[in-house]
Amino acid sequence: MSQIEKIRHSLSHVMAQAVKELYPEALLGMGPAIENGFYYDFDNANFKEEDLARIENKMREIMKKDFSFEKREVVKEKAKEIFKNNPYKLELLDDIEKDNVSLYQSGNFVDLCEGPHVQNSKEIPVDSFKLERIAGAYFKGEETRPMLKRIYGLAFETKNDLETYLSNKRENEKRDHRKLGAQLDLFCFSDIVGSGFPLFTPRGTIVINELKKKIEDICENYGFQRVLTPHLAKIDLYEKSGHAKKFSEELFHVTSPQNHNFVMRPVLCPHQTQIYASKIRSYRDLPIRYMESEKMYRAEKPGEVRGLSRVYGITIEDGHSFCRVDQVKDEIKGMVSIVKDFYGLFDLWGNHQTYLSVRDYAHPEKYIGEKKDWDLCEEILEEVAKEMKLDAKKQEGEAAIYGPKLDFMFKDALGNEIQIPTVQIDFATPKRFNLAYIDKNGKEQHPIIVHRAVLGSYERFIALLLEHYNGNLPFWLAPEQVRIIPVSDKFMDYAEEIFEETKKEKIRAYLDKDSDTLSKKIRNGETQKIPYLLIVGEKEKNEKKVNVRCREKKQEMITTEEFVKKLKEEAYS
Amino acid sequence: MSQIEKIRHSLSHVMAQAVKELYPEALLGMGPAIENGFYYDFDNANFKEEDLARIENKMREIMKKDFSFEKREVVKEKAKEIFKNNPYKLELLDDIEKDNVSLYQSGNFVDLCEGPHVQNSKEIPVDSFKLERIAGAYFKGEETRPMLKRIYGLAFETKNDLETYLSNKRENEKRDHRKLGAQLDLFCFSDIVGSGFPLFTPRGTIVINELKKKIEDICENYGFQRVLTPHLAKIDLYEKSGHAKKFSEELFHVTSPQNHNFVMRPVLCPHQTQIYASKIRSYRDLPIRYMESEKMYRAEKPGEVRGLSRVYGITIEDGHSFCRVDQVKDEIKGMVSIVKDFYGLFDLWGNHQTYLSVRDYAHPEKYIGEKKDWDLCEEILEEVAKEMKLDAKKQEGEAAIYGPKLDFMFKDALGNEIQIPTVQIDFATPKRFNLAYIDKNGKEQHPIIVHRAVLGSYERFIALLLEHYNGNLPFWLAPEQVRIIPVSDKFMDYAEEIFEETKKEKIRAYLDKDSDTLSKKIRNGETQKIPYLLIVGEKEKNEKKVNVRCREKKQEMITTEEFVKKLKEEAYS
Repeated sequence: MSQIEKIRHSLSHVMAQAVKELYPEALLGMGPAIENGFYYDFDNANFKEEDLARIENKMREIMKKDFSFEKREVVKEKAKEIFKNNPYKLELLDDIEKDNVSLYQSGNFVDLCEGPHVQNSKEIPVDSFKLERIAGAYFKGEETRPMLKRIYGLAFETKNDLETYLSNKRENEKRDHRKLGAQLDLFCFSDIVGSGFPLFTPRGTIVINELKKKIEDICENYGFQRVLTPHLAKIDLYEKSGHAKKFSEELFHVTSPQNHNFVMRPVLCPHQTQIYASKIRSYRDLPIRYMESEKMYRAEKPGEVRGLSRVYGITIEDGHSFCRVDQVKDEIKGMVSIVKDFYGLFDLWGNHQTYLSVRDYAHPEKYIGEKKDWDLCEEILEEVAKEMKLDAKKQEGEAAIYGPKLDFMFKDALGNEIQIPTVQIDFATPKRFNLAYIDKNGKEQHPIIVHRAVLGSYERFIALLLEHYNGNLPFWLAPEQVRIIPVSDKFMDYAEEIFEETKKEKIRAYLDKDSDTLSKKIRNGETQKIPYLLIVGEKEKNEKKVNVRCREKKQEMITTEEFVKKLKEEAYS
Repeated sequence: MSQIEKIRHSLSHVMAQAVKELYPEALLGMGPAIENGFYYDFDNANFKEEDLARIENKMREIMKKDFSFEKREVVKEKAKEIFKNNPYKLELLDDIEKDNVSLYQSGNFVDLCEGPHVQNSKEIPVDSFKLERIAGAYFKGEETRPMLKRIYGLAFETKNDLETYLSNKRENEKRDHRKLGAQLDLFCFSDIVGSGFPLFTPRGTIVINELKKKIEDICENYGFQRVLTPHLAKIDLYEKSGHAKKFSEELFHVTSPQNHNFVMRPVLCPHQTQIYASKIRSYRDLPIRYMESEKMYRAEKPGEVRGLSRVYGITIEDGHSFCRVDQVKDEIKGMVSIVKDFYGLFDLWGNHQTYLSVRDYAHPEKYIGEKKDWDLCEEILEEVAKEMKLDAKKQEGEAAIYGPKLDFMFKDALGNEIQIPTVQIDFATPKRFNLAYIDKNGKEQHPIIVHRAVLGSYERFIALLLEHYNGNLPFWLAPEQVRIIPVSDKFMDYAEEIFEETKKEKIRAYLDKDSDTLSKKIRNGETQKIPYLLIVGEKEKNEKKVNVRCREKKQEMITTEEFVKKLKEEAYS
């Protein structure tokens, strides 16, 4: 366990001690270290959100004393004696199968705990932790058990890390895509449609369609062909693919008064195999590459759907290459190039980590497929990683059961991880579906499938983009690229002239004919984060120019011709 | 009843008489006139398909005699005596509530029948009918009743009409879109996905996408904006819209292990209302026009799904305008223009009938909305029909309950009716969903919705197009527009040159590198109905020309430049 994890775990004990001193009647549940901090659960304790500062002060007071965290082993019966007044600890003790259990003592506080902890309280920095919030949590996470009060704490190695985390968090909240989505009028929800089902307005639909056009154009350059497959199927399809079992809890079942019985697809891949299987394929026909931007469905827990980041119907951008073993390398290279081309558009390529996930060599029995294929494909992935200078981190045991893969981890503006693109080799699916091609010798062979996800889910990707750019979408993605604002109705004619110019160039422009004041109109344009506002008045009309205001608030006076030229460069760059 | 219907009905009696003479043990069920002919159901009769000619001959023999069809009324008891050996007729008699029943006598044949019939057997033309086929049919159409043998007959007024019908039918069978779809590699089905769920191959996907682009571009010219809404919703949405009741038998219900409960939408309109409802709208914002090409679902009876013409997931091209009463006329005009522009692309505009469906004036209580709105909107539709020279046939009582409408009926190459486009005014939906806009005086008003369907369902439209064109899709829709066929590998270089030229012009071309013989390659291209095959050999290379073979089998030698120019004119025409 890393030092920061030990610190977090130790802080949870200190917090428990502080709560016990302030609220002696409190009963302790469990208290582990978690990502970014720690928590502890309490029953019978009367604290509220506003008491957190007091508890935090008490923790600092405790830590002023210099004490060590000491582990000792005792027989279970002895531990039961120590915790005899706490039914939760007694139950936890009963869950332990061994005869001896381990306790940790820090100052006068004793807890049932496996550790590890810091050795001494002095190792815990007092200015880089903070109690964050209180939440309800069922004992052991089971809905039938008592609801305890959980205090979440944040803890980092330095004060600076804590402050960065807090400021990013505030920024994240400000950039919440749900807020930005409403502000920019991109999508909405309806009570009678249901949460988890976003409705895309004309503006949001432009964003989806522009993204779709861009990713599909890139993929077309690498030989992918569009296909369209239905969102439903008989469950037989997923029994064969293995997804029926894997997604059994998240499968939507479809029935009707006519006794139909279908499922909504949890993945796209099996449908695409059926197009491949619809004809006899020759080795000369391969590789065959299909792509599709359509929906798949997961029955998320009703409480877990959220904005665009978690929805029931996920519009997935998915692609597969059906190829021969000797073609796998070029296929992988093409797919990595697609990832590079696409993420380059958002200046994210270069700011990422690549992972090469291979077998657990000690346990070959966990995987499907022959050793020689695995050897070859892992070698191919390594070669590609080297040749394309991906600086990939090798991860043993992280391969999928059906083959090794490359994963790409990007970070957004605030350092949040966005793991989306993946390139995976799959030996298993072609065998399950008995897909074949006729080789040079007239014999049937199974092709290999290479899966690739680039953009992932459109819904989630748009949520990420909105938060990444704080709503200032790149020019080519902005649903409204230019808004023309006449200072008054007197200049409407000239404004219309400019409007016609932009329309001719297929720029998504809008002419503001509202009766609002000029400053209100400018404010509206800014709120909606329109890349360019063109203010048109006396001076502009006389000089045959436009006053361009960009999102960075810079202003310049240029001719319409210059402006259009500039935009075209930006749109096609 | 028209004369031809009387003839058909009389033929069914003559057929029954012929069967009784040939198979005295046969028991008669029912025998009405139907579209294009007639049928009669028989039990206990031992005839097979090959006996139809014999029965037909017997009918002609019977009709050589000159006899009349005479109606007489008898008391039910007397009729029961006559039909005492036929349990079917006895049951039919029991179903009649009156005391007297009517019989028809023709020659020595008597049947329980309401008529009417021709007066004399001489009125029946002997050379314009034909016994077509035998099918099984439950008595009274009820699945629990005995299965009878039904003989279908065709009958027309003239021999010529019969022959036209038969030749169209043969042509229709040859043009079956399922056959053409496989031949052109446009779509396929999979047993483990299920029938009713077509999978579109890369070629079929091009056809869908080109159609989508074309219809959406046209609609965009008339101010429609694309939106995207989910395929599912809570049933609440359809309880409010009224569709839950209307489509209760055809609704797909969606459930999950997480206790979700949704339905798959049977129509698109309610979702689009929710985008309108997501913001406060002003009278200045109207009209707001949404369009969408997405799926809706109907739980068709499993036996009734068929190719692309009847599927479970219907990709519908649907649009709605939310407008003020004073805008309805312009909205209707725009929508009719869309229909005209779109069907003009297929040379179908002009070859159609327009229907103007208005209220049943005697029963105003059957409709939703105020009389003054109905008066105005019917007047508007009449004005539009007049101004746009639609030559519309007025149909009283054919309006929807929520408003009057215009329907367009097209005929395909073989005279089959294709009713698709419709423009409907709707007063009810905005009220049900409480949609509003703020009028000039700051008061809330309900907008009016104008619905329009142009292309209808993509699946069905493609089926119709394939059959209409016998697979020879217009150039702009053809998935592969040009195939370049080198006479031998020696001319591959020159072929590649031409291929690059066509690619530059964004023509969907394909270079045939297969090792087949030249004649096989040409045959393949013809089977797939590629608009242009370019044969490239010695002569073509030397003269820097291409040998163009079009689908009409005409050939010409022209330069690549001339060819590309010609194509571009065709593609953009």
